[in-house]
Amino acid sequence: MTSWSGLPFVRGTSPPYVAAILTTALSDDPVDLAGYEEAAARMADLAVRIDGYLGMEFARDEHCGITVSYWRDLDALRNWREDIEHVAAQRDGRERFYLGYRARICHVEREYEWARPPDLVPTTTDSANE
Amino acid sequence: MTSWSGLPFVRGTSPPYVAAILTTALSDDPVDLAGYEEAAARMADLAVRIDGYLGMEFARDEHCGITVSYWRDLDALRNWREDIEHVAAQRDGRERFYLGYRARICHVEREYEWARPPDLVPTTTDSANE
Repeated sequence: MTSWSGLPFVRGTSPPYVAAILTTALSDDPVDLAGYEEAAARMADLAVRIDGYLGMEFARDEHCGITVSYWRDLDALRNWREDIEHVAAQRDGRERFYLGYRARICHVEREYEWARPPDLVPTTTDSANE
Repeated sequence: MTSWSGLPFVRGTSPPYVAAILTTALSDDPVDLAGYEEAAARMADLAVRIDGYLGMEFARDEHCGITVSYWRDLDALRNWREDIEHVAAQRDGRERFYLGYRARICHVEREYEWARPPDLVPTTTDSANE
């Protein structure tokens, strides 16, 4: 599972906005990881209900998961962090899926995109000239 | 491949600093992806030579790769973006590995960590009280 939009990266955003980076060390016990994909998909379904949600990106491999969620502002992110089902899912994550994690809350200053033509357009955009 | 330190997330950072989030749509042709892991590892080896490099996190699955690199400031990130071998690798990525990507440059405002005791310490830290 990589995306909920066909493309694995979130488009249509424009700085400034907020990013939350969650990098997790996944349990090395397959029993612990049962239900992980479903839980991640459920979180994505929940997040879209939050006013100010802009999108989510997700990748995982055997030992590491990275989820980046994007938000209009810190208030929107706070509402997500306090969402009751999300809080319960975080607890499940700590009890089963994760050995540990580090979360970072960021202000996105600038972004740019590239796509291999002609499948994806635009080919290049940049939010700032530097 | 998830990490170059044993743990897949970067520790020891303290805001403010800079994060660069690169989210890539990977080619669905295995021929295109030959050498991808090696190229990613090589980039990690190169990045540590840049003054102001703080660390890198990496996860990928079948369709999506997310790399987050951390930098002391925008000048350090700029030096990395202009590193000649890194520039060549970016070109290779566009020609072979990637269908597209979106890159975001962020200021990290806050971070916190959790680890399942007793394997990892500290169990909880937070860069701010809110």
